[in-house]
Amino acid sequence: MKKPLTALSTCCPPVLQGRLTQAAAEEIAGAFKALADPARLRLLSFIAAQPSGEACVCHLMKPLDISQPTVSHHLKVLYDAGLLERERRGTWVYYRIVPQRLSALREALLLPDELPREKSAARMVTARAGSRR
Amino acid sequence: MKKPLTALSTCCPPVLQGRLTQAAAEEIAGAFKALADPARLRLLSFIAAQPSGEACVCHLMKPLDISQPTVSHHLKVLYDAGLLERERRGTWVYYRIVPQRLSALREALLLPDELPREKSAARMVTARAGSRR
Repeated sequence: MKKPLTALSTCCPPVLQGRLTQAAAEEIAGAFKALADPARLRLLSFIAAQPSGEACVCHLMKPLDISQPTVSHHLKVLYDAGLLERERRGTWVYYRIVPQRLSALREALLLPDELPREKSAARMVTARAGSRR
Repeated sequence: MKKPLTALSTCCPPVLQGRLTQAAAEEIAGAFKALADPARLRLLSFIAAQPSGEACVCHLMKPLDISQPTVSHHLKVLYDAGLLERERRGTWVYYRIVPQRLSALREALLLPDELPREKSAARMVTARAGSRR
């Protein structure tokens, strides 16, 4: 049941390294939308704070004081946004954070002078290639 | 007219370094909400791509193909979220990115093992103090 960490976790087009296309902007905006909710941020925070780094719906309802359907909805949004991966064990599904996805989102917000030199060069090439399409 | 870079740009409580309070979650969610829109991401991208690092509404309408009221609305959202600062010069208001705010948002998404050691220690102290409240 584990979700393969493919395109979603290895996104995101850089926002501030050249002009963003509409398609790229939509992709990144979708990920930030998943983070734009206090309950979802608290769920991520709770999961990250577990010694095992994971939690199931059964762990999340009481400390956050939200109902099981609401927890499940938010977990699905975070999962669909690639921010959580999940694994079924018996009756319960366990969720853990996808660090690569968070890292990609952080990197999408770097300004050109904050990029490591080699990435900056690679991105300039990508941006130029993109502009010829 | 320049906005002072106070609390807004020096936020944000870390999401993944301990359990987040509701108030902290609401603050950070508000900032991500400002980023959760393709047109606003493209505005940021366009402003960052200017050689001068700034742009006014007059520069932004045509390349992004959105109307002046829509551009103004999005710029206001980004300004209110602390992501842009602005300055009036004659008829026009010029906007530029607030790098400290972006940097704070990126940092809010760091996992504990990704934090620089000194920050990690400081945050553990803060988190403990918070949990006694």
